[in-house]
Amino acid sequence: MNFYFFRCSKCLGIRQNEKSKKLQKDIFQFNDFMDRHYLVGTQLTVAAHCTINATIRFMDKIKIFAPATVANVSCAFDILGFALESVGDEMIFSKLDEKVITISVPLGSNLPSNPEKNVAGVVAKAMLDTAKADFGLHIHIDKRIMPGSGIGSSAASSAGTAYAVNKLLGNVFSDTELIKFAMLGEALASGIPHADNVAPAIMGGFALVRSYHPLELIKIPVPDELYCTVIHPQIEVKTENSRKILKKNILLKDAVTQWGNIAGLIAGLYSKDYDLIGRSLDDKIVEPVRSILIPLFFELKQAFLSAGALGGGISGSGPSVFALSKGKHTAENVADVMDSVYAKTGIDYDIHLSKINEQGVKIII
Amino acid sequence: MNFYFFRCSKCLGIRQNEKSKKLQKDIFQFNDFMDRHYLVGTQLTVAAHCTINATIRFMDKIKIFAPATVANVSCAFDILGFALESVGDEMIFSKLDEKVITISVPLGSNLPSNPEKNVAGVVAKAMLDTAKADFGLHIHIDKRIMPGSGIGSSAASSAGTAYAVNKLLGNVFSDTELIKFAMLGEALASGIPHADNVAPAIMGGFALVRSYHPLELIKIPVPDELYCTVIHPQIEVKTENSRKILKKNILLKDAVTQWGNIAGLIAGLYSKDYDLIGRSLDDKIVEPVRSILIPLFFELKQAFLSAGALGGGISGSGPSVFALSKGKHTAENVADVMDSVYAKTGIDYDIHLSKINEQGVKIII
Repeated sequence: MNFYFFRCSKCLGIRQNEKSKKLQKDIFQFNDFMDRHYLVGTQLTVAAHCTINATIRFMDKIKIFAPATVANVSCAFDILGFALESVGDEMIFSKLDEKVITISVPLGSNLPSNPEKNVAGVVAKAMLDTAKADFGLHIHIDKRIMPGSGIGSSAASSAGTAYAVNKLLGNVFSDTELIKFAMLGEALASGIPHADNVAPAIMGGFALVRSYHPLELIKIPVPDELYCTVIHPQIEVKTENSRKILKKNILLKDAVTQWGNIAGLIAGLYSKDYDLIGRSLDDKIVEPVRSILIPLFFELKQAFLSAGALGGGISGSGPSVFALSKGKHTAENVADVMDSVYAKTGIDYDIHLSKINEQGVKIII
Repeated sequence: MNFYFFRCSKCLGIRQNEKSKKLQKDIFQFNDFMDRHYLVGTQLTVAAHCTINATIRFMDKIKIFAPATVANVSCAFDILGFALESVGDEMIFSKLDEKVITISVPLGSNLPSNPEKNVAGVVAKAMLDTAKADFGLHIHIDKRIMPGSGIGSSAASSAGTAYAVNKLLGNVFSDTELIKFAMLGEALASGIPHADNVAPAIMGGFALVRSYHPLELIKIPVPDELYCTVIHPQIEVKTENSRKILKKNILLKDAVTQWGNIAGLIAGLYSKDYDLIGRSLDDKIVEPVRSILIPLFFELKQAFLSAGALGGGISGSGPSVFALSKGKHTAENVADVMDSVYAKTGIDYDIHLSKINEQGVKIII
């Protein structure tokens, strides 16, 4: 289903139309109207009010929030991720008449402004080429998630770009197609086009990558009282490197233990059984290997479990470490004990506390 | 919570008490009453009607139906199983004053009547010993599931025994404890004390073995329209042998594919998404190895998928092959095509069609 946005010349409201049919270039037949006034930077006109055969132009500019994400989720390596509410990048996308892509970043940022080397540029180019767009783009990235943090820094920019460019194109792509475009950014950043960060960033909530070939994403329900606390030690761990240290072969008996936990985690999320979620957050395969890259990992884990967290583990490929809790109060206690463990290290760190973000990328003003 | 059964001397109804407190041997304090008249062979008396301090004796004899089960369920090797409704063993358990266990089987059956070599005898002995019972047992087994069939033959006898002996003891054990006792039978039969047949046989429905250490079972919801068709080629495949041919090591990338499917299967069962269940029934690890033991496995699979089955695979360790379908009509079509594939082989076979059995072992008259 495509969505088209326009400003009505009679009532001046910005409107979104769900049921529309393209008759010819830029001429759409509108069947009904919905009031959803959250659009920003829209420059749309409509020839007639509440009638058919309206001429529109799509919006020229959009500003979005792209959330940080926690991938792998302990036992669910490479297949599950969830989005955070309180941490993410802000990005502004502006149409250009010339068919080029330019990127700007705040002064002092180490991000590449060459669009071929920036994940946002790579994702945007693929989308504009596929859609045979007749415009170019300027992308401004206010990067608030540090690269290599393990909470989906490249995924936020990739997913945010996929979402925003799709809006500028008039919603021509499905969520699954957006995730595939965003995976091009992940491939540039880490060498591996994985989906477990970009999928929750776009879809919101917990996103399960049921299959890569073909790509199939399933949105898993989020229990209401689930909170996440993440500590981000400011040392860089590249996804590429932390993947290299994994063993290519594992014991079948360890795999069986792991899939019991994965099944338990999914069952816990559906049935809102917080304790089952906690018991299932147990990773016998990746955590024992990757945890060596994270200073005081086991002290952190012991501390957050003692503070009442349901469970947790390495966020993405690290170095961030996440814990899930039932209720904000426990999540705050978890933040306190994480702080206590890291205060003595001399390593800079941030701690984030967030509900699970059920919406994913969103348009902001 | 223990349950105590008695026949009221005033109203003559057989009653079951849920909230009771043992005061001394055979003296219980009853707090409330429930009408559940399904008990058979009960010889209980109660001194007073609807009052406290009633003297009771537990039932002396019980007859049960113990269902066949499909374990492994394609991608969910060793962690998931479900029970069938239309196939199973019937067993009669009678208390003996002497503290011995005796077993009888129908003439012509190859089952051992030595209680140390029969799974029912091993399970019953462990339970009577643990409960320090002051009685013995005679067990009659009407074996209707052929040993080595792959639909939980040993599990049915083990689970049926655990359930029935618990009733004769006055429900002193929890479901998880019953499953642990029944696993002793599985250890005798196959060398491996696995739970993915005995758990659904006792709990009914789909039973997930979230963890073996400690043992934790989760009951997964059953979509209403889910039917199972099973073909049992009458060749014997011993669980012990079919386990030996499995590789001890697997590729991490194959494991990741598998846990995507496991998560998808659990999500599909919770969300009643039949197509998702079907797409998730894909096993890249065990099926490719074990299928060589089953004549015409791939022809069967192709046939049942063409007939509209959601998916399927090897039942347990084979040789039975199961398919899940949405609706009885499709399950019947699947039975027809399974029949067509096997009719030409010269191998004897049975085909069973069943809803998923949500109750598990049950008392029958």
